[in-house]
Amino acid sequence: MCVLGLGLIGGSVLRAAAAAGREAFGYNRSADGVNAAVADGFDATTELESALERAAAVGALIVIAVPVPALPMLLGPIGRLAPDCPLTDVTSVKGAVLQAITDAGLLSRFVGGHPMAGTAHSGWPAGHAELFTGAPWVISVDDHVDPDVFGQVLELILDCGSVAVPARSDEHDAAAAAISHLPHLLAEALAVTAADVPLAFALAAGSFRDGTRVAGTAPDLVRAMCEANAPQLLPRLDRAIALLTAARESLADENSVADLVNPGHAARTRYDCFPRSEIVTVVVGEDDWRRELAAAGRAGGVIRSALPTRDSR
Amino acid sequence: MCVLGLGLIGGSVLRAAAAAGREAFGYNRSADGVNAAVADGFDATTELESALERAAAVGALIVIAVPVPALPMLLGPIGRLAPDCPLTDVTSVKGAVLQAITDAGLLSRFVGGHPMAGTAHSGWPAGHAELFTGAPWVISVDDHVDPDVFGQVLELILDCGSVAVPARSDEHDAAAAAISHLPHLLAEALAVTAADVPLAFALAAGSFRDGTRVAGTAPDLVRAMCEANAPQLLPRLDRAIALLTAARESLADENSVADLVNPGHAARTRYDCFPRSEIVTVVVGEDDWRRELAAAGRAGGVIRSALPTRDSR
Repeated sequence: MCVLGLGLIGGSVLRAAAAAGREAFGYNRSADGVNAAVADGFDATTELESALERAAAVGALIVIAVPVPALPMLLGPIGRLAPDCPLTDVTSVKGAVLQAITDAGLLSRFVGGHPMAGTAHSGWPAGHAELFTGAPWVISVDDHVDPDVFGQVLELILDCGSVAVPARSDEHDAAAAAISHLPHLLAEALAVTAADVPLAFALAAGSFRDGTRVAGTAPDLVRAMCEANAPQLLPRLDRAIALLTAARESLADENSVADLVNPGHAARTRYDCFPRSEIVTVVVGEDDWRRELAAAGRAGGVIRSALPTRDSR
Repeated sequence: MCVLGLGLIGGSVLRAAAAAGREAFGYNRSADGVNAAVADGFDATTELESALERAAAVGALIVIAVPVPALPMLLGPIGRLAPDCPLTDVTSVKGAVLQAITDAGLLSRFVGGHPMAGTAHSGWPAGHAELFTGAPWVISVDDHVDPDVFGQVLELILDCGSVAVPARSDEHDAAAAAISHLPHLLAEALAVTAADVPLAFALAAGSFRDGTRVAGTAPDLVRAMCEANAPQLLPRLDRAIALLTAARESLADENSVADLVNPGHAARTRYDCFPRSEIVTVVVGEDDWRRELAAAGRAGGVIRSALPTRDSR
């Protein structure tokens, strides 16, 4: 396996894959990351071309672990030197990556991924082999996805100790907008609003602290997530603004916030009771397997061990 | 001391006051609460008139611990039977209580309070003597506040193990709107928005869970808080909607949320660094003492032991 980018996530994938007994090597643009990885006993280089030639020679699974802006720099060399290697990524906004991969002509061997794990720190030193243990790791089941590459990416996810959540890229990005990017913007708005009120910080406790916790995230990280997912974030933001505006009118006109509070409580209760289940019956490669996996993921299903394939049955 | 209403808060005040060695007795409308309190060894009755006559006979501090809608039922009898007793309350919206007290002609002996403590449960059995330990307890320093009654209410707060935060009622309500009531509405809007997105609950983790935690609060409690504080909540809600709408426009037009995220992060950082200090030098009863205490509370000051008075100096 070949990991391109040895930051927090890529560096942790390299460690976890090696710990699982895989032959794994990495590339990083800066020598700092490579030196740190080598000093820790890992196989890493700053030479992109030699890493890709090596991956091509053994048919290694290539894991793209760089931020979206750095993608184009990698995709040209991959297409030139290792076009037949299976390919995945670990980026948090899947639509933008899918587009770049498509533009680079690499779609047929690509199955995207997103491990839902991280820390507030970054770089090789922040990573560790257990970062993904027990975490959900989204695996793409878009229309183009190849059963064989899917199986290889799934194996990596399970080797890293994660549970796989099958999802379409567009649905992933819509969900991420609702459960991650929108909460960040609401937290920022709450912090700004309270900061204007003289006594607010003096009295602030539980609900303010929880409601603004993610406003403590570095602004450039929040911007990168939100701005890369603008097409999906805008409708969620519109919906939240519409709900708050309706509540504002109802509070002013009828002194009632019931129309927001009742469905809000019902939604949170539904979330608390959301069923988790294991996906075991879908046969990878059979008719409609991608659609079935997307439906199962949507319903709370996760993959905890290798799925049956047409060959294995 | 006489506690009117033996629910979670009132019942805990009675226990904490008794534990501090005070002579304390209580009244509750329903026999259930009284029976439970008596069974636990406390002095309690369902007879409002006898409780108030007893309070008047010994000049007891009366603590009103009933929800706002039940206030009028108490204020008439208090005015008739115990008009000279010092009077406080433990209600979360101070403006509405101040108005009701004023209308009942009881303002001169009244100093409002609000312990910032609670649990998700209610009723006598949910209370305990340590509920207020270490918690901030707002004490009113409105223009009418009498130094002697202030001193008695402060003594109760300190006896309950709380730290007192001096504040004007209008500033308290504005702050509560920003740090408690607005966060509840944002949490409800987030929960409703995410519930519409098919994959959202399947992927939801930290930021969604934190951002919707208070949407788990019983809807009638959230409505009661928000609706009783509508005059203060509306401008905070307007401000939050304006911030989100501006971010929406900026995201759509310039693909940037910097103008919300940067000040949001700065505000949350300021909150994390908000200085707490002890108020020790203000002399209760001297010129401008109420204004000085309000300013000190706004700046993060708390009272941890009895303040000097004109007599004590």
